[in-house]
Amino acid sequence: MGCDMAIIDLNSDLGESFGPWPMGDDKAMLQIVTSANIACGFHAGDPAGILTVLREAAKRGVTVGAHVGYRDLVGFGRRNMDPSSAELVGDTIYQIGALQGLARAAGTSVRYVKPHGALYNTIADDARQAADVIAGIKAIDPSLVLMALAGAPIVAQARQAGLAVVCEAFADRAYNADGSLVSRRLPGSVIHDPAVVAERMLRMVTEGRVTAIDGTDIALEAQSICIHGDTPAAVAIARTLRETLEAHGVELKSFADAAHV
Amino acid sequence: MGCDMAIIDLNSDLGESFGPWPMGDDKAMLQIVTSANIACGFHAGDPAGILTVLREAAKRGVTVGAHVGYRDLVGFGRRNMDPSSAELVGDTIYQIGALQGLARAAGTSVRYVKPHGALYNTIADDARQAADVIAGIKAIDPSLVLMALAGAPIVAQARQAGLAVVCEAFADRAYNADGSLVSRRLPGSVIHDPAVVAERMLRMVTEGRVTAIDGTDIALEAQSICIHGDTPAAVAIARTLRETLEAHGVELKSFADAAHV
Amino acid sequence: MGCDMAIIDLNSDLGESFGPWPMGDDKAMLQIVTSANIACGFHAGDPAGILTVLREAAKRGVTVGAHVGYRDLVGFGRRNMDPSSAELVGDTIYQIGALQGLARAAGTSVRYVKPHGALYNTIADDARQAADVIAGIKAIDPSLVLMALAGAPIVAQARQAGLAVVCEAFADRAYNADGSLVSRRLPGSVIHDPAVVAERMLRMVTEGRVTAIDGTDIALEAQSICIHGDTPAAVAIARTLRETLEAHGVELKSFADAAHV
Amino acid sequence: MGCDMAIIDLNSDLGESFGPWPMGDDKAMLQIVTSANIACGFHAGDPAGILTVLREAAKRGVTVGAHVGYRDLVGFGRRNMDPSSAELVGDTIYQIGALQGLARAAGTSVRYVKPHGALYNTIADDARQAADVIAGIKAIDPSLVLMALAGAPIVAQARQAGLAVVCEAFADRAYNADGSLVSRRLPGSVIHDPAVVAERMLRMVTEGRVTAIDGTDIALEAQSICIHGDTPAAVAIARTLRETLEAHGVELKSFADAAHV
Repeated sequence: MGCDMAIIDLNSDLGESFGPWPMGDDKAMLQIVTSANIACGFHAGDPAGILTVLREAAKRGVTVGAHVGYRDLVGFGRRNMDPSSAELVGDTIYQIGALQGLARAAGTSVRYVKPHGALYNTIADDARQAADVIAGIKAIDPSLVLMALAGAPIVAQARQAGLAVVCEAFADRAYNADGSLVSRRLPGSVIHDPAVVAERMLRMVTEGRVTAIDGTDIALEAQSICIHGDTPAAVAIARTLRETLEAHGVELKSFADAAHV
Repeated sequence: MGCDMAIIDLNSDLGESFGPWPMGDDKAMLQIVTSANIACGFHAGDPAGILTVLREAAKRGVTVGAHVGYRDLVGFGRRNMDPSSAELVGDTIYQIGALQGLARAAGTSVRYVKPHGALYNTIADDARQAADVIAGIKAIDPSLVLMALAGAPIVAQARQAGLAVVCEAFADRAYNADGSLVSRRLPGSVIHDPAVVAERMLRMVTEGRVTAIDGTDIALEAQSICIHGDTPAAVAIARTLRETLEAHGVELKSFADAAHV
Repeated sequence: MGCDMAIIDLNSDLGESFGPWPMGDDKAMLQIVTSANIACGFHAGDPAGILTVLREAAKRGVTVGAHVGYRDLVGFGRRNMDPSSAELVGDTIYQIGALQGLARAAGTSVRYVKPHGALYNTIADDARQAADVIAGIKAIDPSLVLMALAGAPIVAQARQAGLAVVCEAFADRAYNADGSLVSRRLPGSVIHDPAVVAERMLRMVTEGRVTAIDGTDIALEAQSICIHGDTPAAVAIARTLRETLEAHGVELKSFADAAHV
Repeated sequence: MGCDMAIIDLNSDLGESFGPWPMGDDKAMLQIVTSANIACGFHAGDPAGILTVLREAAKRGVTVGAHVGYRDLVGFGRRNMDPSSAELVGDTIYQIGALQGLARAAGTSVRYVKPHGALYNTIADDARQAADVIAGIKAIDPSLVLMALAGAPIVAQARQAGLAVVCEAFADRAYNADGSLVSRRLPGSVIHDPAVVAERMLRMVTEGRVTAIDGTDIALEAQSICIHGDTPAAVAIARTLRETLEAHGVELKSFADAAHV
């Protein structure tokens, strides 16, 4: 383990309120994370609310990413869809551009793109939709980094297309022996004990390994850890994780400020 | 009349198709206008369709503006609304940013902002909503030009706030003796004869004057003329206007390329 | 005071969750109210969520009303709009029809209509929009009752048009001496003390009078009391109100089950 | 061939305008068809526009059906989606209810349900989503007829669930030898010659057979023929079809008025 492995980024989905409906505790999470995936209005987020979160992120020096999703508000971008390539390229650019504009107004800028929900899962291994999202990112700003699932086919596809990629691990999710996530529908897929979550991620950061759900020990390399903040319990887990990592000498730093991207 | 008065900009609303529903003949209009007010998705326009129009505008060298509107798709942004300041500032930035992103992908850039429909009419003399739109524009890019109704209070308000303003006249609309537009609800408010439209605008460009609906002769100074393209008849009027102006030695040129903004 | 004055209806806005965003504690409120104003999808509410609330209302025997609003999801129907008559009539029918369908599926039926937010306030004294809503109700089912602000011009207008009207008072709002609500922008407009709220409404029910904000004593006749349930504090106020009324022998009963409508 | 085979229903998709965007020539089509599949607002159609079409359908005695679709306006309900069962059941009821309300206001009633676009194609053989739509229909009104693709698995599934089903053929589509439709992506999938369309459908009505794309002769039993009206050419094909059928003694009559459903 070189010393540069002792740096890790923490990311979380923010800005997901909509109109009169709040979601998550964005202020609390911006004190914990180093990168913020901010909703762009298609699956969640309204302009005024997004702007407020961006201003807070700017104040705290948290790196900002565009959390682009399918155009499905009522379904929160969690339902599979099959947009045409023209639609998906356009939707990707539109959302990133809108967030860039709001970020500029808030005194910060968009550094990366992390697709959301069903889009995130689909492009992990659907080469056509992945190509559309990659094309959209490159068309608006080829210097944007793509944040993707560690080990998924899209990582190589995006790099081959010329994008920088940051791989992420999921703090509270169990992994299969092949490195994929255990489906949420299966028992044991989500880990609820803050201490276990923190211990697993500490080992991932320092050793590059986690224990899979079948007990085998597997490699998991990631430059960022995704944590949730949609419930008080989730915020508590995130806080414990951050404190545990720091207590063990791990530096919390956005990948955008680190050297290895 | 100095020689620089013999330059005029022609602008029109484009990109107003939505999903399966076409609107207007954008390709034809892009051969006539020098500036294109392009829908940003709130009152009309979907990302894929907007991108197509932007590519065509880039190819033809037509200047691109953000046609921002109220968030009212079914009402086409033509219904009055009273968003809060936070909402209107945010919505303005969001729409401009989204269009900037698509414009970048199309190889062009957004040079100005022209509010649409009810928002256009409201901010002409509603100082609060006008201030919100102005604040939104300045927050994302203070070098953007505001296109506004010649003679309306917003012109001075925006200039005082530091924005460059282009004033526009409406080719096919009758004017009251005080320089305001005759309400669409009144007879004679819209001029349908292409020759009359062309003659009036030629005089506006060369003499800075038009005949009001009551027969009086009034001053009307504008650097741009708004023309419609939503019907075959409208395209024909636009074409006649352009040909008449050119035949009389008026140079058609975007205000963005002219010296006087 | 006749004995039939000792009956009162309690109503509240329910079904206002949307997709992933919850709002209010509908289950708790359905144990307190006798009538439920249920969102119809335009300002809030998605079909699956509305259906769940309707099933619970049916189980509890709570009377169901259509809480129709402007088509403004992000603004929660709280922003003024000026739809055309054709639009407002159509939107009213559409929303009521959708709720009737869901109510049928849930084993209950829609008995009344209570407009929401900006629409509620506008039609209180805007005769044109009031006429549109009234026309919409009559077109789909003239036996539907309109729930309206006690003392507002729409009460007479709707009755003249042939609709039955239930007048409502607002439990936690201060009244002006002329019987109108004190604007939310003014200090003292909202009453937060559960005991004061309960005391005021008890007097309204038993004596038909409340103390206005200037200390004068005014007449206030209503067959229903509107209570909020969007926060834990609001639910607590509602519970205290119900208990206080019951402790003083007031019967809580939906106006639809009472004789005097 | 019994004499009751010489009756056929003609259906078409109507009410698909949205706000400022017209689609199709509804007035012309209502003079040709005997059943109208009317958009319910999710993939197309706004309340005021739907109401106008319903009034015209009522005037002409055309049978009205609910053309329910996925909640995807920009994609016109043509993109595959995977709503949960609760969502799809709710969306189905909501749309039918809304149309029932508007139909009542227009002096007519909804007699059947024909799913639209991607939903239509998906439920043809996706038993889970088919079950959700069937459950939605039964929950709001089990006497509603389902219009479905002749030969598709959903026909038996719906009948087993207790719904009456009307099978339809597509006038301008080529058929595979197994009775399925030739994919639109393949050459020859759409038939453009009005005479050929009319001839094929006449044979389908009188003999219950059509020639498949590979030249084989196949059985095709349908009680309704779907025709398009979204272009002037489509209206012309529809008119020729109707005239040809009538000239050969076939009676055009809605399935709802015929005996065999």
